[in-house]
Amino acid sequence: MTTAEIVTQIKKKKSFLCIGLDVDLNKVPSFLLNKEDPIFEFNKAIIDATHHLCIAYKPNTAFYEAYGIKGWKSLEKTIQYINENHPEIFTIADAKRGDIGNTSTMYAKAFFEDLSFDSVTVAPYMGKDSVEPFLAFKNKHTILLALTSNEGAFDFQTKQLGNTELYKQVLETSKEWENSKNLMYVVGATKAEYLAEIRTIIPDSFLLVPGVGAQGGNLQEVCKYGMNDQIGLLINSSRGIIYASNGENFAEAAADKALELQKQMAEILV
Amino acid sequence: MTTAEIVTQIKKKKSFLCIGLDVDLNKVPSFLLNKEDPIFEFNKAIIDATHHLCIAYKPNTAFYEAYGIKGWKSLEKTIQYINENHPEIFTIADAKRGDIGNTSTMYAKAFFEDLSFDSVTVAPYMGKDSVEPFLAFKNKHTILLALTSNEGAFDFQTKQLGNTELYKQVLETSKEWENSKNLMYVVGATKAEYLAEIRTIIPDSFLLVPGVGAQGGNLQEVCKYGMNDQIGLLINSSRGIIYASNGENFAEAAADKALELQKQMAEILV
Repeated sequence: MTTAEIVTQIKKKKSFLCIGLDVDLNKVPSFLLNKEDPIFEFNKAIIDATHHLCIAYKPNTAFYEAYGIKGWKSLEKTIQYINENHPEIFTIADAKRGDIGNTSTMYAKAFFEDLSFDSVTVAPYMGKDSVEPFLAFKNKHTILLALTSNEGAFDFQTKQLGNTELYKQVLETSKEWENSKNLMYVVGATKAEYLAEIRTIIPDSFLLVPGVGAQGGNLQEVCKYGMNDQIGLLINSSRGIIYASNGENFAEAAADKALELQKQMAEILV
Repeated sequence: MTTAEIVTQIKKKKSFLCIGLDVDLNKVPSFLLNKEDPIFEFNKAIIDATHHLCIAYKPNTAFYEAYGIKGWKSLEKTIQYINENHPEIFTIADAKRGDIGNTSTMYAKAFFEDLSFDSVTVAPYMGKDSVEPFLAFKNKHTILLALTSNEGAFDFQTKQLGNTELYKQVLETSKEWENSKNLMYVVGATKAEYLAEIRTIIPDSFLLVPGVGAQGGNLQEVCKYGMNDQIGLLINSSRGIIYASNGENFAEAAADKALELQKQMAEILV
């Protein structure tokens, strides 16, 4: 999927919402646990109820790997279901991978080819040759961790590296990499005030913004500092939407929460 | 597995060799491709031929994920085969994971519980709360990326962060984390001269050292600067051993290469 197609979808749906499909079997409605594939059934119901309100889905691979082969199957069924029924949806494998060159190529194949995701999140610690293998895939997007939404972001990311902070150095340096037009960045919403400075370094890139909702980030603040003339934002909410209820009505409750956010987004997009 | 048990194995086998099981179907002997599970068959033959010469096996998860569910099955069969037949072997999931707290716990469950690995490699970019969930598992080891063996290591890891380099800051900071006794570190052999300084920061920790062989690192240099009184080194070789031949004799050829390294190690251990 091209960036232009993402922008078209945002304008059409009046939404730049991404829903995180982080399925924990301890949190899903108990009646689903009797099904053959409770994770997929949960995702399918959430997707059926919310696909018109969001432009992206983001399964975090950890929640699937934790259930071994069964979990990997649920992930495969989920991405296939999205791609077959809602090909207009941008899909993100939140995998935070990264390794030496030939190994990163294997990860890129896993997510871009075997699973047919549109994008994958990647960690920057190993530098250029660990990220460029992902960037080599045409019309696929590599979403680099820059400033994450957790407390640990202050351990290294915000520390001074040379004459700037590490996360800004990651932004600056990555701009020079081959096919850097395929880069997006993870920037946590809990640090909205950082977005103005980030936009001076990467004015045009899309930002994937976790941390709205459960982690306390504020949508209006994020848009004020982070939006560009192509919108340039994918706002993620996971737990705040998918676990809105653990009753029979969980999918409707999730849709209600997604609708709340989509309405706020529509107002901002006017 | 405890660190003391690893040291006992090193002394018994006169080896601190780790063999990387990075199976690329384009590189395995072609006659294996007719088998139902060529990746597992390859690993089984390598393990049968080399287990007495090494103390650890390290499958890199990228090479399994690239083949989807089939690949994940091959990984599961491989770790089961090692644990059932060679429980004295230390197993490393080279996964380079790391995410916000509750998500890292899911990764830890995936590798420590579902797959029963003894250890997993973890990236430090997201800081303390992304690593501590792994450290909470008793008698399991978390191998933190410090200084990797690729060119990209010079993009961020060796840059000055505050008054020291980023990778040294990672070493210093991580010492303060809860259960930091469960930490080991990845330090590339291509930068052996860095090991002396690294040992001033973490004198007692085990180091997983990739880059000997195919990537040009020198075993004697690594041991000179990196060994401590409990040995403290796991030297990894992947391609240099497992792809020594792509004929019918591939396992014997791998054992020959492993024996070469083990003999050098035995001399160093005298």
